[in-house]
Amino acid sequence: MSPGVPPTVEWRDGSVRIVDQRRLPFELVMLDLPDVTAVADAIRDMAVRGAPAIGCTAAFGVALAARAARDLPLQEAMHLVGSACAALKATRPTAVNLFHAVDAAFEAASGASSASDAADRILAAAQRMLAEDVDANRAIGEAGAALLPESCSVLTHCNAGALATAGYGTALGILRAAHVHGKLRMVYADETRPRLQGMQLTAWELMQDGLPVTVIPDGAAAALMAAGRVHAVVVGADRIASNGDAANKIGTYAVAIAAHHHGIPFYVAAPTTTIDWSIGEGAHIPIEERATSEVTEVRGMRIAPEGVRVWNPAFDVTPAALISAIVTERGVIKSPSASRMQAIRDSQP
Amino acid sequence: MSPGVPPTVEWRDGSVRIVDQRRLPFELVMLDLPDVTAVADAIRDMAVRGAPAIGCTAAFGVALAARAARDLPLQEAMHLVGSACAALKATRPTAVNLFHAVDAAFEAASGASSASDAADRILAAAQRMLAEDVDANRAIGEAGAALLPESCSVLTHCNAGALATAGYGTALGILRAAHVHGKLRMVYADETRPRLQGMQLTAWELMQDGLPVTVIPDGAAAALMAAGRVHAVVVGADRIASNGDAANKIGTYAVAIAAHHHGIPFYVAAPTTTIDWSIGEGAHIPIEERATSEVTEVRGMRIAPEGVRVWNPAFDVTPAALISAIVTERGVIKSPSASRMQAIRDSQP
Repeated sequence: MSPGVPPTVEWRDGSVRIVDQRRLPFELVMLDLPDVTAVADAIRDMAVRGAPAIGCTAAFGVALAARAARDLPLQEAMHLVGSACAALKATRPTAVNLFHAVDAAFEAASGASSASDAADRILAAAQRMLAEDVDANRAIGEAGAALLPESCSVLTHCNAGALATAGYGTALGILRAAHVHGKLRMVYADETRPRLQGMQLTAWELMQDGLPVTVIPDGAAAALMAAGRVHAVVVGADRIASNGDAANKIGTYAVAIAAHHHGIPFYVAAPTTTIDWSIGEGAHIPIEERATSEVTEVRGMRIAPEGVRVWNPAFDVTPAALISAIVTERGVIKSPSASRMQAIRDSQP
Repeated sequence: MSPGVPPTVEWRDGSVRIVDQRRLPFELVMLDLPDVTAVADAIRDMAVRGAPAIGCTAAFGVALAARAARDLPLQEAMHLVGSACAALKATRPTAVNLFHAVDAAFEAASGASSASDAADRILAAAQRMLAEDVDANRAIGEAGAALLPESCSVLTHCNAGALATAGYGTALGILRAAHVHGKLRMVYADETRPRLQGMQLTAWELMQDGLPVTVIPDGAAAALMAAGRVHAVVVGADRIASNGDAANKIGTYAVAIAAHHHGIPFYVAAPTTTIDWSIGEGAHIPIEERATSEVTEVRGMRIAPEGVRVWNPAFDVTPAALISAIVTERGVIKSPSASRMQAIRDSQP
């Protein structure tokens, strides 16, 4: 899959095993999450991050809750599982995959004959989601790679890779496929302040797999474009509104504006599970604001004046007008609009 | 001047005293530079930075060399001073103030009757430059503040403040003047990776003087603009070509594109000593590339995967077309062009 990167999340003997992404690239440490509280903490603290990875991890969290309740009467068990779902949904507000996955896991238990049966069904649903996410990423990878020119240099922001998904990656899935097809000259990875996912996760993950990667400060992306060294931008998404506006890691919008200014195609790669059909436009996507310490400290070391005021939104919204195409597992939505998005929805198998 | 900020550079009993800007905001440490080698090292290592501050410090460096040679025959002394000038000019390639200041200091000795007389003349010239830079910043401050609306929030990038100049600042001089006039609601300071001058110098310096300041990651500037929270952008410059293209800290160009996209005025504040009349356009301004460790380490701590490739240009060029006005001590150049720039040049007193 990604030969050098272990599974982002997997079910292991009744607990959920994840890569602790907070410790990369310094140490590769696996975390075993024994219960739903541990899963919720891991999502909130960003031990696991990336919309699809959060979704799969949360689904396994529901499975853990169901497993813990498997000896109870069904109704009582499902009440506990429902509480667990609420706790998981309260961890982070922006990535819609979280809500979709938790709801789907819960609904998988409908019609169960016992709590034990419900637990089995929920686990099976979570496992299916994991497999489907990898399949979706493979399809996204091939569809996106076809959009790229030969010998291309691609800029990406944050990490929409194997680590952000069940494996292979969305944006980085496209780059992996382009690499296999011999099209990829260089990946430029925005370091992606404040959490540095571009430098610490994307660069690490691509180096593990032998892809060519160069890290740049976020502010250097526009200058790189002006120098003619970027042929396309490919990013992931945390939630896409039904008109094609896409929320993604803070800084994505700035990259989209710069790409537009230079006439460089800007692609958003995401499975259709990232689309929130209930939201008409990006302005209605809730944007998480995170602790100021993410900006004022690096690896626990203070880097800012004491008492300084900070604004730290985790995401921004790129309007559909700046997006050349959204690449999904069901196809490519060029120049996304509400009607073109709807066409993909109607194409559901 | 700036009540809370000590002089960036001053002559003290035969040595040059500077604020060691690498240690802010954690400690306020003064460095006494006893000779021209120490001055060159301080400029190269960015103990002092900011185009006008570099210029003044370098002029004092020439004065130190002349002082060391004051007992020699005049011709021999000026030969040594010439070597010192070459060493100072080799420290950093982009800021043109460095070259202007060193040349002006050297030329101040022409007509000297002895090495001692030359040393006195060079020191006097350096002192004059320092005073003139503060005067220029005051004039820039008033002229720029007049461009800002009431109750405005202004975004700035890097540090073009008291610390980057002989005092008061260029971009931050405008904000200081706006604050005095009761116009300033908030300064948003891009943290300015990789060296974090926005977070570590601009925020510190404005907090010292009681101005309202909020730090944001560089990638958040466009989102802040989209939210309607930025009424103007004000930045400094390291070198301005004769057509108005302006080189400034990496990331400035991205901010200019975003401001243009949102219809927000983008002002460059700089003394006319920052204009390089010999360069026709920004593409010819040499851009310094600095060590990758500036990106991969923070305060000596590694933050990137071992062996990762990095691109670390110190500056980028914002084309004149994206600049609403260049604010100089001789007046405001709206929609800068070669002819409008020339008009300011011809207005020289």
